[in-house]
Amino acid sequence: MLEVCLLGTGGMMPLPDRYLTALMTRYNGSSLVIDCGEGTQMAIKSCCWNFKPIDVICFTHFHADHISGLPGLLLTIGNAERTEPITFIGPKGLENVVNSLRVIAPDLPFPIKFIELTKNEEEIKIHGYRIKAFKVNHKITCYGYTINIDRAGKFDPEKAAKNQVPKMYWSKLQKGEVIVDGDITYRQDMILGKPRKGLKITYCTDTRPTQEIIDNAKEADLFICEGMYGEYEKLGNAKKYKHMTMYEAAEIAQKANVRQLWLTHYSPSTVYPENYLKAVKKIFENTHASRDGYYVEMFFEN
Amino acid sequence: MLEVCLLGTGGMMPLPDRYLTALMTRYNGSSLVIDCGEGTQMAIKSCCWNFKPIDVICFTHFHADHISGLPGLLLTIGNAERTEPITFIGPKGLENVVNSLRVIAPDLPFPIKFIELTKNEEEIKIHGYRIKAFKVNHKITCYGYTINIDRAGKFDPEKAAKNQVPKMYWSKLQKGEVIVDGDITYRQDMILGKPRKGLKITYCTDTRPTQEIIDNAKEADLFICEGMYGEYEKLGNAKKYKHMTMYEAAEIAQKANVRQLWLTHYSPSTVYPENYLKAVKKIFENTHASRDGYYVEMFFEN
Repeated sequence: MLEVCLLGTGGMMPLPDRYLTALMTRYNGSSLVIDCGEGTQMAIKSCCWNFKPIDVICFTHFHADHISGLPGLLLTIGNAERTEPITFIGPKGLENVVNSLRVIAPDLPFPIKFIELTKNEEEIKIHGYRIKAFKVNHKITCYGYTINIDRAGKFDPEKAAKNQVPKMYWSKLQKGEVIVDGDITYRQDMILGKPRKGLKITYCTDTRPTQEIIDNAKEADLFICEGMYGEYEKLGNAKKYKHMTMYEAAEIAQKANVRQLWLTHYSPSTVYPENYLKAVKKIFENTHASRDGYYVEMFFEN
Repeated sequence: MLEVCLLGTGGMMPLPDRYLTALMTRYNGSSLVIDCGEGTQMAIKSCCWNFKPIDVICFTHFHADHISGLPGLLLTIGNAERTEPITFIGPKGLENVVNSLRVIAPDLPFPIKFIELTKNEEEIKIHGYRIKAFKVNHKITCYGYTINIDRAGKFDPEKAAKNQVPKMYWSKLQKGEVIVDGDITYRQDMILGKPRKGLKITYCTDTRPTQEIIDNAKEADLFICEGMYGEYEKLGNAKKYKHMTMYEAAEIAQKANVRQLWLTHYSPSTVYPENYLKAVKKIFENTHASRDGYYVEMFFEN
């Protein structure tokens, strides 16, 4: 099971009843966070999720509302007695930005590993997550992220027999181990059928709509996308500041044929995002005007 | 009138229902903030106070829970269209720490003036506030602050006549102007009686008790002091981490003969600070177990 919690839904600045946009997932004992603006650690506490299992933090970009909560989050993870390394993934310059912010959090009981993205698209496999970062179109370098949980194929005894895989290795191979026995190397695909449908969520803010977002969100089980403005007349603002209206987000969801769309990163002026939902749903029916703490448990299909 | 609002009462980390300890005052159109940990801008919004009139920000020290909210606060003040300079007061190294944090808030529409404290005690007069900073005893360099609103004496016509001050200057002199007329310089004290009692608040966290705190809080109208722990058995922790118990704060209040004590900077483990109030009041009766948003309007005595 993959658990997904949208920690906050605010853009630009945190409000007393709206944390800044950030995502947290839990899968197989490992937690992943995307973005951490001011107050994200409070949002995590609101969900009663733990800090210690946070293995990966991905950053879309370095505007303050997406990273200003980092020093406090790191200290709180440290207080949770974590000693294992945390992997940070983000645009070029990540290590420099993080080290600058750590002027007030210099001593941590865990190391940080940095993966700086330099290409338009990059894939990272870590802690059971297959993360695909893809560049989007904001005022500064910014990435969207697709989180894939892959699922191997079913055990196929005929294939195992055909490949002459000894029975004693079946269990280990199913767990993903590679076994070398003399000259022969046994791999998982020698006993399993075709990979089955996994789980896919795509997270995307702050950006104008692009073809790459449609491509990367293709058939996602959950598409979380900024919907900064709900008023039609604010399209000009969206273009000027390189954000999206709710309608543009819904168009991407429709073109990418995702299962459901959660809107987020609302402008502070958007007090009731659900007011626009009727019109947005005409473009993509399964749209949700998310609120802080929006949560879903996702299961593999049978 | 001086308005005082205790924006938050938490220590170490912000909680969903408790912002980090910070103070805000309003006097004569000018606002002053002491400390700004993660979430302080949310706390200011909760009070419905404005960002634009913030003229002064004082920092007790550079632990994250007292400054981590600065980048977001600065950006929000910028969004409020402030262009006038803001004065920052804090320990040596202030400019360096602030500039490091500003890696995510490089462009602001207002300049920042830095006053770095280097002595054990320093006094700064600014925007109607007479600020007295005094060094306390924490793990790193840390200052307490006394905010004084001075009040001039009453107009004394006999004194004005005795000092031969022309009537035409009385009004300007009462407003604090200095007038040079030929060889003669006229000052306010030539027409006013003795200065009257002003207003005094003393703010003090994080520290062990010291004689200097008692001296600086002497006769304060309001003493805001950390009371990290309420359990007697946590005195050892207080000593180890250089904090104070509620009882130690009350002893200072009693010795300094302040009017009232507001406890703050509670440990995250102190869920109900008011549970300890009965015992604390035995040491100093007018003690309050403050909560976020504690507020008072202070008036000059007649």
